[in-house]
Amino acid sequence: MAQQPTTSRFTNPSPARPSSLPDRRPSRAVVEPVRPVVDGGAFAAKAALGEPIVVLADVFTDGHDVVAAALRWRQAPPSSGEENPWRETAMASAGNDRFHAMITPDELGRLEYDVVGWIDHLETWRRDTVKKLDAGLDISSELLAGSRLVDATLDATTLDTDDRARLSELRSALARGESTATSATLRDATWAEVFWRCSPRAPEAHLSRPLPVDVDPLHASFAGWYEFFPRSSVGDDAEGSGGSDDAPRTVLDSIDRLDHITSMGFDVVYLPPIHPIGITNRKGRNNATTATPDDVGSPWAIGSSAGGHTAVSPELGTVDDVATFAAACSERNMHLALDIAFQCSPDHPWVSDHPEWFAKRPDGSIQYAENPPKKYEDIYPLDFESDDWQGLWNALADVFRFWIGHGVTVFRVDNPHTKAFAFWEWAIATLRLEHPETVFLAESFTRPRVMERLAKIGFNQNYTYFAWRQSQWELEEYFTDLATRTVDYFRPNAWPNTP
Amino acid sequence: MAQQPTTSRFTNPSPARPSSLPDRRPSRAVVEPVRPVVDGGAFAAKAALGEPIVVLADVFTDGHDVVAAALRWRQAPPSSGEENPWRETAMASAGNDRFHAMITPDELGRLEYDVVGWIDHLETWRRDTVKKLDAGLDISSELLAGSRLVDATLDATTLDTDDRARLSELRSALARGESTATSATLRDATWAEVFWRCSPRAPEAHLSRPLPVDVDPLHASFAGWYEFFPRSSVGDDAEGSGGSDDAPRTVLDSIDRLDHITSMGFDVVYLPPIHPIGITNRKGRNNATTATPDDVGSPWAIGSSAGGHTAVSPELGTVDDVATFAAACSERNMHLALDIAFQCSPDHPWVSDHPEWFAKRPDGSIQYAENPPKKYEDIYPLDFESDDWQGLWNALADVFRFWIGHGVTVFRVDNPHTKAFAFWEWAIATLRLEHPETVFLAESFTRPRVMERLAKIGFNQNYTYFAWRQSQWELEEYFTDLATRTVDYFRPNAWPNTP
Repeated sequence: MAQQPTTSRFTNPSPARPSSLPDRRPSRAVVEPVRPVVDGGAFAAKAALGEPIVVLADVFTDGHDVVAAALRWRQAPPSSGEENPWRETAMASAGNDRFHAMITPDELGRLEYDVVGWIDHLETWRRDTVKKLDAGLDISSELLAGSRLVDATLDATTLDTDDRARLSELRSALARGESTATSATLRDATWAEVFWRCSPRAPEAHLSRPLPVDVDPLHASFAGWYEFFPRSSVGDDAEGSGGSDDAPRTVLDSIDRLDHITSMGFDVVYLPPIHPIGITNRKGRNNATTATPDDVGSPWAIGSSAGGHTAVSPELGTVDDVATFAAACSERNMHLALDIAFQCSPDHPWVSDHPEWFAKRPDGSIQYAENPPKKYEDIYPLDFESDDWQGLWNALADVFRFWIGHGVTVFRVDNPHTKAFAFWEWAIATLRLEHPETVFLAESFTRPRVMERLAKIGFNQNYTYFAWRQSQWELEEYFTDLATRTVDYFRPNAWPNTP
Repeated sequence: MAQQPTTSRFTNPSPARPSSLPDRRPSRAVVEPVRPVVDGGAFAAKAALGEPIVVLADVFTDGHDVVAAALRWRQAPPSSGEENPWRETAMASAGNDRFHAMITPDELGRLEYDVVGWIDHLETWRRDTVKKLDAGLDISSELLAGSRLVDATLDATTLDTDDRARLSELRSALARGESTATSATLRDATWAEVFWRCSPRAPEAHLSRPLPVDVDPLHASFAGWYEFFPRSSVGDDAEGSGGSDDAPRTVLDSIDRLDHITSMGFDVVYLPPIHPIGITNRKGRNNATTATPDDVGSPWAIGSSAGGHTAVSPELGTVDDVATFAAACSERNMHLALDIAFQCSPDHPWVSDHPEWFAKRPDGSIQYAENPPKKYEDIYPLDFESDDWQGLWNALADVFRFWIGHGVTVFRVDNPHTKAFAFWEWAIATLRLEHPETVFLAESFTRPRVMERLAKIGFNQNYTYFAWRQSQWELEEYFTDLATRTVDYFRPNAWPNTP
């Protein structure tokens, strides 16, 4: 209590170990959050622009007094510290101490909400007086008590003109004394609304702290994704023919696919990695350990002398071509999604420029990826325990910044669960502060807690177990879990496979 | 992240809005609490002296490295700020990222626990090397890498003699090179235990803050209660006869009931209020509004010229008699529970000494209790919105202190849900800091959130809906809820009725 003298809050940052009384009387009302809330407010819940958010909270008091509640929300203050104004809306009772309200976010980025509860002494008085009227009891004392409450309200608060007029009218009715007209005035249920606005609220109860909600663009919450490799794409005239004998097609060539894709109703066009592919230890067809001159290698073996994560494989085009392709998607009300796989071929510029970002074997060579006995010599993982982890984190965040600067705002992140959680939490928060329209999809098929953690720390969408749930009961159970336990933060992208 | 540079914690007090990197590399491990935890740590969970506490947490990392976890706990620091030392025990994996450990509290009062997770690089290396052995691959590079890890461990940490010897032995085996003996050494599963103790842990992951658990005496968690009115009690020789024609019996007379009560296996002897009963507006039999000279009135109409909540009704005895009775209970391994009902008869000393502690009607008279159209003119409720709420709160806490000083440590609190939650939270925390053996039972039959709140803010036991659950499915559903959703804080006292 000592930390929170003015309010009774649902969470006490350090549960009460008081040795002295609070300085000011806490509210008799209490507020407990119900939803949306993720791990008690440790992580932001998710919402989408223009989509209603239903906020539920339990608001109650000791005894039998009437409590009232309001939802307050605002854009979260930026780290610079400037505060945005709170907006407020009434919460309605749903019975059994639960209150609800609905707001519709109209701005991207983080908002925060608080729930405020107070005892409505005017409405308590009105309800109890009507009870006595109903029981045929004398209410002269109640009329006096009510007059005092109304006087105090007229004195104490800033009322709008209409409310002041109504309260003055009530004051006159009470002064008139007990009568049929006075009884009718008291029974008028619309007082509850007037009192909600006018009743003195102090001391109010609050949540222990405002709860965060990240407002995403709508396509973060629902979208159809279309995946293709530009080099293997075919034009409109050959659609469905399953291939082409022509030379590999470029990103610009692929623009002619977009009208067909949009006509099928897709929202996102997703390209697997388009970066230069390494030469050293390049894999051949079907994972052959030596490549023929015709083999392009795995697009996930990223980087060559032509560049790394901010370059485009020359046979596919240029970064400007990607910007053009992204704009062509936008013109068709679609979003381009790039595949971001934070791993390097042995030929990636970072290998020579920043060897400290990679783990070494005892002989000093860089450790390639392996899952014993399997070896992936064409891929070097990044070392998130590098002594220069700060340089690495900044470089990785800059990869996203680079593509955002070229019109890409959706990223399908490859295997995020093999990179440090703390990195993602920092990177996504930072990037969404700068560009709240950015969407990150976690391409992660792994254990439940790991996938859920990725959602908590900021990924807007997650891959799911959908492809592994086949019978009716499995699907029902799984989607019920997604629609209940994790619904505030884990958005399923029921993508059936991965290339 | 900015607030927590050294660790990756499950709750970020203010969810990440970073504009710069953390100062130090966060752990790649993360820790999420599972139980016991009440509202994210806002309230203390409950435990009992000598009864094991099972702590569950999810501990995991990105990628495939081996994580290890420890449970740390200690007596919570008193408000004076002196810190108690942490104790530590290993947590075992239960699969799917969940870890568990069991501790048995050996001291009353608040303890706090933390869960610590780290990446065990030695065990990761050993597991991966054994995988390569199993696949028949060359492990010469792994032997070198292992030697370096072991060297760093021998350098860097304070090891006990046995562990140092074992690590030196491992170092020799690795230096010996690949051989059957080396393979056998590597496959020895007992390394996991050694490495748990020896592997460098920094940077560790922690809970966002230690979680509180209140350790109660065992009879707070399980006890049979026996209720009787001393004035109506009969002696051993008349047991079961249903009454006595003798004069009302006293507290001291009632000691002769105790052997019979303890023989039935009861743990707590509960006396309804024993205080002086008011004269003004005293109720007669069956709630008659006028009392005859023989009517004793309701024991819940507390206070007369003979005193209030710290006095004993003269016909029952004295406060010293109550202390004697409490001692007699203790001698029989039982606990005396007093009924504490914070309300006053019009004759209570507080009415004249502290009229400001009561709500007034417009005519200046004190407001009696009512639930329109019902009136309880023999009872004045206390006003928790009094301007002198601090004086009132202190006086109420002093009532408990007074009886604790006379050997009473169990209190059946009457209707706590009609007094301010913030008062109980403060009073119970304060009293249990002074007297951690004290037990508070909430006599509260009301709405679910209100009863649960009373449990959260410190009541050790709560009345339940047991008496209203009659069919099998109702009982199953209700007790399942008590045994799952609220199990960490709500202790059911399945008392069937109230007098």
